[in-house]
Amino acid sequence: MQIAILSFFHYFTPMFKKRENVFEVEEGKFLSPKFDVDGLIPVVTTDCKSGDVLMHGYMNEDALRKTIETKEAHYWSRSRRSLWHKGKSSGFIQKVVELRIDDDQDSVWLMVDIGNGASCHVGYRSCFYRSIPLGKIKNEKELKIEFKEKKKIFDPEKVYKGQPNPTKI
Amino acid sequence: MQIAILSFFHYFTPMFKKRENVFEVEEGKFLSPKFDVDGLIPVVTTDCKSGDVLMHGYMNEDALRKTIETKEAHYWSRSRRSLWHKGKSSGFIQKVVELRIDDDQDSVWLMVDIGNGASCHVGYRSCFYRSIPLGKIKNEKELKIEFKEKKKIFDPEKVYKGQPNPTKI
Repeated sequence: MQIAILSFFHYFTPMFKKRENVFEVEEGKFLSPKFDVDGLIPVVTTDCKSGDVLMHGYMNEDALRKTIETKEAHYWSRSRRSLWHKGKSSGFIQKVVELRIDDDQDSVWLMVDIGNGASCHVGYRSCFYRSIPLGKIKNEKELKIEFKEKKKIFDPEKVYKGQPNPTKI
Repeated sequence: MQIAILSFFHYFTPMFKKRENVFEVEEGKFLSPKFDVDGLIPVVTTDCKSGDVLMHGYMNEDALRKTIETKEAHYWSRSRRSLWHKGKSSGFIQKVVELRIDDDQDSVWLMVDIGNGASCHVGYRSCFYRSIPLGKIKNEKELKIEFKEKKKIFDPEKVYKGQPNPTKI
């Protein structure tokens, strides 16, 4: 509800430049990001060294502004419904090396430096630690996925002691 | 409406393994993807050679199944409201090299080979051809973005002749 009201408000008074027309959005020189009905924009975060995708998250206007200004990744946590300065509790801060916006300005790509740290709350370096095998599927309900990262970087039970798991069924 | 009905149906009879508990989703060996209320899962697509993020899209169950089986990227086009075999009209097919799922299985990472082709409907190789400058913002409404790709790979007016532009205000 809080997001819906904020989103309604921002629809009429966006923080960034108002989206005027398709040419300006695609070929223009000004940032005019599109936030969805919940006031959020999806974010792809990659490791600036390996190029691996570390995580997929969301930002609201404030998270995007704070990320640009502080050069540290800020997201909107949908599970906690609050601004999320990534690494504030775990110590795994994401230093932003480059920030890009896509053609229709409705998604963001963050290139970050996490040193030897991790990005995933389960303890792996990347959230995408499992691979889906390609080819003919025998049974969709028994499709086995393969672990590509074998070792966790940290123990989530120690780092996130007492905090609820953001993964929802 | 069509998506809403499909989504309602799939909620009770998912194509892939039903999500049983958090441990199975995060540490288990079976694919149990989470589709949102519209029946969609976000997809990050990267270039298997450069590691660049090419695009951010969405899949429904059928698009995910077809991508796995054909090894060519299929998405759900939200603007056209239909299954989208990427490259079918432009010729820029995305050959899937690897497919990953994230910790809570609510987003997908596609590594693809597009040869010397392009991924962006505006004509650039990547949809993320513009960079947002980092640091103190003077005025959010006049935040200039910088072109990182200088040259288009193709002319969209020739390739997509007569087709509506998917970018919406």
